[in-house]
This record gives sequence, C-alpha cells and structure tokens, in this order.
Amino acid sequence: MWQKDKDHFIHPFTDFSVFHEEGCELITDSDGIYVEDSRGNRFIDGIAGLWCVNVGHGRAEIGQAMADQATRMAYFSTFNNLSNAPAAELSAKLAELAPSHLNHVFYSCGGSTANDATIRLVHYYFNRLGKPNKKRIISRNNAYHGTTYLAATLTGIESNNWAFDTLDHLVTHLSEANCYRRPEGMSEAEYCDHLVEEFEDTVAEIGADNIAAFIAEPIMGAGGVLVAPTGYHKRMQAVCRANEILYIADEVVTGFGRLGHFFASEAVFETQPDIINCAKGLSSGYAPLGATLISDEIYEVLGTPQGKGGVLSTGFTYSGHPVSCAAALKSIEIIEREAICENVREVGPYLERQLKTLGHHATVGNVRGSHFMMCLENVADKDTKALLPVEARVGDRIAFEAQKRGLIIRPVGHLNVISPTLIWTRETVDTAVAILDEALSAATESLQRDGFL
Amino acid sequence: MWQKDKDHFIHPFTDFSVFHEEGCELITDSDGIYVEDSRGNRFIDGIAGLWCVNVGHGRAEIGQAMADQATRMAYFSTFNNLSNAPAAELSAKLAELAPSHLNHVFYSCGGSTANDATIRLVHYYFNRLGKPNKKRIISRNNAYHGTTYLAATLTGIESNNWAFDTLDHLVTHLSEANCYRRPEGMSEAEYCDHLVEEFEDTVAEIGADNIAAFIAEPIMGAGGVLVAPTGYHKRMQAVCRANEILYIADEVVTGFGRLGHFFASEAVFETQPDIINCAKGLSSGYAPLGATLISDEIYEVLGTPQGKGGVLSTGFTYSGHPVSCAAALKSIEIIEREAICENVREVGPYLERQLKTLGHHATVGNVRGSHFMMCLENVADKDTKALLPVEARVGDRIAFEAQKRGLIIRPVGHLNVISPTLIWTRETVDTAVAILDEALSAATESLQRDGFL
Repeated sequence: MWQKDKDHFIHPFTDFSVFHEEGCELITDSDGIYVEDSRGNRFIDGIAGLWCVNVGHGRAEIGQAMADQATRMAYFSTFNNLSNAPAAELSAKLAELAPSHLNHVFYSCGGSTANDATIRLVHYYFNRLGKPNKKRIISRNNAYHGTTYLAATLTGIESNNWAFDTLDHLVTHLSEANCYRRPEGMSEAEYCDHLVEEFEDTVAEIGADNIAAFIAEPIMGAGGVLVAPTGYHKRMQAVCRANEILYIADEVVTGFGRLGHFFASEAVFETQPDIINCAKGLSSGYAPLGATLISDEIYEVLGTPQGKGGVLSTGFTYSGHPVSCAAALKSIEIIEREAICENVREVGPYLERQLKTLGHHATVGNVRGSHFMMCLENVADKDTKALLPVEARVGDRIAFEAQKRGLIIRPVGHLNVISPTLIWTRETVDTAVAILDEALSAATESLQRDGFL
Repeated sequence: MWQKDKDHFIHPFTDFSVFHEEGCELITDSDGIYVEDSRGNRFIDGIAGLWCVNVGHGRAEIGQAMADQATRMAYFSTFNNLSNAPAAELSAKLAELAPSHLNHVFYSCGGSTANDATIRLVHYYFNRLGKPNKKRIISRNNAYHGTTYLAATLTGIESNNWAFDTLDHLVTHLSEANCYRRPEGMSEAEYCDHLVEEFEDTVAEIGADNIAAFIAEPIMGAGGVLVAPTGYHKRMQAVCRANEILYIADEVVTGFGRLGHFFASEAVFETQPDIINCAKGLSSGYAPLGATLISDEIYEVLGTPQGKGGVLSTGFTYSGHPVSCAAALKSIEIIEREAICENVREVGPYLERQLKTLGHHATVGNVRGSHFMMCLENVADKDTKALLPVEARVGDRIAFEAQKRGLIIRPVGHLNVISPTLIWTRETVDTAVAILDEALSAATESLQRDGFL
C-alpha cells in the first residue's frame, strides 16, 4: 500500500525532496481522540484531521447515517426543480444555527469551493444591482482561503503561490492582524487603529465604487492562528457598512464549535457578516461539504428571476449531496446532544492556560490562539523575535518529537498548530501538554546539537 | 420539508420565476434504474442523477463500504507525508485503468475542481519548465467544464455566464464540433478539416509559445451531446503535439463506462491525452470525488523538489478523502464484476437505434450521441433546422410529458438529454423509448394547441 501511494498519489502540499525518499505514513484506524498508523502506532490527534474532525473519530452513527442515505438515495441532481430531504433539512438547520439574518444556503464541496462560489455570487449580485464596477475583493496577507484559482488568489500566504499563477487585479491584500509582530512600541489599541486606517486608506485609494467585499477569517488559521486586536472585526465591518462593501466571514475553521459556538462571528466577535462560509467542521470531515450562508438582503437580489428561461447558472453536481448532508446533520446532532460547544467553552480556556506554561522553552516565542485553535510560534531569540533559519526546520522537529511520543501536531514553517477534536477533556489536555513539554525539550536539544541554538 | 427547501436552499441552476411559485420536488428513494419522489411516484432515471450514478441506485454494498471506512477512519489529512489506504489503493487502480502513460493522480471533489486544479498544475508545470508565457488555454464554444471562476471561464456555453464574471485573456474558445449544424454543403470530412484548420490558425495567431493546453470533452455533454466528426480528436491532438500544447481530456461524463470503456480517450477516440480529468462516474455519484490523471512526463516536472522546505502548495482538505475513495473503489469493483462496460457496449447501440426511431416526430430534428450518452435536438422546422421560440419551452414540455409517464430525462433549452444509469437492459430501452414516443406525441399536441407548431 505504501508503494502504491508513493507511485501513484500526488499529495497536496507535498515536499517531494522528502516524499521521493520516504513516501507516506498511512493513517488506517481511528477512535475518538485517537488515530492509528498502519504499523499500529497510536496517536492523540492534535489537529482534528486538518481542523475538521470536530466530533472526533470513529463515530459509527455518522457512518450509519451515510450508509442509510447512500442505500436509500445516494444521489440525485439538485439543479432547478429537484431536491432531496437531507439537503432541505440541513439548509433549515443551518439557517437556525446561523445569525438570524443568514437564512439561505448555497452548497459546495469544501472551503475552496465555498469561497470561490461566494465571490462569483458576490460579483453576480453587484452586476444585477447595476454596479458592475464593484468587483475588487479585499483580503489580507497570510489569509488562507483555499486553492482554486480564485481561492488561491484570495489567499495571502506568499509561499502558497510559489510557481503558481494567481489572478491580477481582482484582490487587494491588507496587512494581517498580527499582535505578536505588531510594530515596536505600538499598543494593541493603537495597532487596531492602524489596521483600520489602512483599510480606510485602501478604500479611499481604490474607491468604494470598485470594491465588492472584504473577506476575513475570524482568527487566521493556516496563516498562523493570528488573533486580531480586540474590536478589530467590528470596526472593519463598520468600514464595510459605510462603503457598501460586503463583509464575508470565512468560518471554515472557526465554525461548528472550535471557538465554543456554532459560528464565531456574532457570538465571539460581535459582527454580523453578510455572508458566512463554512466547511470542515460542518460535516466533521466525514464527507466533503461546504456551504455559503447568505443574508436575506443578498438573496433578494440573487433570487430575482432573470426573465424567460433564465437560471442562476452556477453550482456543482454535488451541491447539496444527500450523503454529505446526512453526515452533516448527524454531526450537528452530536454537537448538540453531547454539548460539545459547552465542552470547548469549558476546556478551551484550560488548554490555553496549560499551553502557555510551555513559554519557558527556549524556542517558544509566543503561545496564542483561542479555545481549540492554538499555535506555538518558535523563534531563535525571544527579545528580537528573530526566526531560526529555514534549514533548522524547527516546526518539523517539534512535531516529529511530539509524534514519537504519541501526539500529532501540525508544523507550518516555524509554527506548530494545535487544533484538536473538540472532545478533549482536561485530562487529554494534561497528557498532550506533558508530551509537548518533553517534545520541546528534545527539539531544543537537537537544535543545540546541530548548532542552531 | 418542501417548505424548508423553498425557504433556505439556493439550488444550482435555478429558474427563480418557477422556484418561488412551485419550489422543488423531493427525490427521496431509489432502487436500481428507478428513483421515487416524496409523493411515491416512481420514475426510470434517464439521467443517472446527473450523468453520474453509473452503477445504478440503492447499492447497499457501496453504502456499507462508506460506513465501514467512516467508522474505521473517516478522515485524516493527506497533506505532505500522510495518506490513507483507500486513496492509495484507488490511485493504483486508476493508474491501472487509465491509458498506460497516465500513472499519477491528483484528487479533488468533483469535475469543477478537477478542471480548476488541472489548469493550475499546467501553469505550474510550464513555470517550472521556464516557459512562463505558455499560459493560454484553448477551449471550445459550448464546452462545459464546471463553475469555479476558472472552470466557468473554460466553459463555453454563453448562457451559463449570464451576469457572472469570467477571467479575461486566459481562455480562447474555438468553434464546437457540431455535425448537425455544420456549414451548409460541407461534408463531414471537410468539416473536420475546417475545425482543425481553425485550431491551427488560432495557434499561429496566438503563438504556440503562449499556449499551455487544449481542453476538450470527448463528446460534449451539457453543451448538447455533440459528437465530433470522425478523426477530429486525433487530429486536434496532432496539432497539440506539433506545438508543445498539452492535450487535456475532460472525461467527467464519458469516463467510467458511459461509452463502454473506463476511459473513452484511447479506447474510442484513439487519443493519448497528457491529462484526463474525471469525476461523476468515478464514484457513481455516491460521494463527491474528482481526479486528475497525469502523465509520467508531466509528473517528472511536478515532482521535482522545489528546494529547502518547498512544497507543491496546492490541493484540497478533501483531496483523497478516505470515504469518497472507498465509494469509488466499490463502484469500480461493481463495474468490473457485473461487466457493466460490456453491457453498455451491448445495449448502447440498441439504445441509439431505438431512439432514432423517434425521428418521425414533428419536433425531432436530430437524434445523436453514442451508447449511454444521447440527445434529442428539437426544432421548429427540420429542413431549415430553425428553433422554436424560447417561450415554447420545448425541452421542458417533452421532459414534463415523459416524467408524467414515469421517465426522467433532462431538458437543456431545446434539447433533451438521455444519459441513463449503465445497467439498462434492452427491455428498459424498450420501456423508455415507448414512454418517449408518447411524450413526444403529447408535447407536439400541446405545442400545436399553444400555436407554436
């Protein structure tokens, strides 16, 4: 199986210098907070698959719901005048869970297509309003919004687009909100002013008449789990409102419990987005699914008939796939039944506190995040915040040492992301943090041995 | 459920002038060649869900395979150095089924993302070859390649992009190969020359150094089931070869048996594409899945390490989703075990012959297609091939009359598409064609009654 994988599977985000030598480890089994590889090694899954297995692994009842739906009616087109029960049910459920003005759902197959479809619909919206110049999208450096051609253009992580092409002129990137690396001598409040002013200046420069939307993750995910200064999102939304710019919240990571609520925008950040995108936790990763939740106001325009025989001609074969929707309905049922959001609100602050105890390690410059979305930023020097050289592979070293001790965390350059399944207890936190403690010591030693520290 | 759907689900390709009044019919049950709506009406599914339920409905063993995988290990990231057994197994299986030089698989979630990812990888390929100007993609009018921003730009169906934006300068569309509506007095062979010359002229005009790839469906699907003149694809590929232009076959519809073979490119059209895209029949629609099959030659470039810490930074969370891959493996097993390709090769020509007997109806100007991919083109006048006015909704009328009699076919403007599950027997063909015969008579009567004929 290892050989088949190595010979035939082109993995996303592959480092071929390693892959051609080592191939892949196969994850073959799973149960609750654990996954297991083909050699029988068991790990605590500290990344929830990839920010997504929110209800935890091995949920037979989700598998059963999928099998029942697949056997009863696996697939039929949802184009035009046909639908299916799980998609209808899920649409109503999402409208119930989302902020009260978001009542209309457009389905896709994951985060990339949710964001791609959203921008297409936003352009359509302004075209139909007779404002065809309102097209520019404002995103942010280090934002991650996926990898379709359009989604990759929204994404602001430079290394992500190395040797790839992106679209010209469609997207303008503002600075990310990075409290740890904010300009020297600036208070958090001043930093917030500074970021909001940058947005205002950009709007003035490009012209509100040329800007369609601002898109932002409530907490930046793959860009480094960056938590914006207090009040930032609310103020960014105010700039949007003042300029008829739509506010799109990319809740692909933050949605479905990771910050203790089904959606973080209103509950945590006090914003009322015009559109919320979700995926990942929506189905807890058991089936590919994405969704764009759209306000009543926008729907009124999208839903205006185009005249004789005209259709809103976008969407995917698998938009509202019955089996994927059945998986999502069951996952949401579990989140509600087992009070998983409450668990995150209870255990999340404990996870934050315990991870912060690791700050004494030589490389740990910053421990940040919120609830079940956390990150360690590793540095060479805590005062200057200077980074270790890329060759030190500090993130990889720490992840490797943790994995050896039974915990999978995600290395992203010099960062380590911890984004667990949402069923961790205080005891799991203690176990995981103890492993990380040892792993950081071992990684520090190996960095010293190799002359990087 | 009907109300929930109407209130909250934004359907793909929706005609809101009808939707706001009537909402949707829910398809709730299915079995083999049949689907059933929520009122208990049973229909022969003449469109295989949407060109995709190739092995037929209600396959409990696919549901079971999905449940087993979902319960054992529903999801873990396939980024970088991790994988899962079903994705590895499926990659090897696809390499075995595809033409011999296509041995590397990049996964996505459906046809749109397969095409989107492919073009991104093609650009990356030429960038890494040091040919950054080779970027233009040659597509064709009436091609359908999906609805991401990029895929919608590849698509050449004009009405599809009404009020939507598409990319400038990336795609050039050639004429479609439409034998029925080819220029007056031109033989099929001359028409083929004409189309190939158009391609050669376009290459000369744009410059081969600026062109990355040509993309084509072996038989155009949503654009009207257009079968190109004999030899067309082979000659188009020769033009590609002569100009270092990659040939991409979009086999999203034709793949996995619809034309009697797992892939049609080589077996039916004698081409050796550099890349084949597939989706739909790949999993028989039981789970969202797309795949891009890539040649050894291209993989050699994609797989060249980018230097320290560099990764091929594209792909989706759900690339190689274990449950989707398990569904695909089971579907492929069924196609092989039940000799479904053989069934299509046996029953397909019979379906073609029987559908052609409907040519005597007043509106049927052309019956075309191949095997289980067929279409009726309706006209006002068979000599001039003039169309009925849009308000006549001829395709809708015929589909409505067929559905009333127990057969779902797909109206696409003035066309009716028949793309059944691949398990139809001669008896099913007889039943379906008898229904169509009645439906065409009834539709003709109603068109006469309303003064359109």
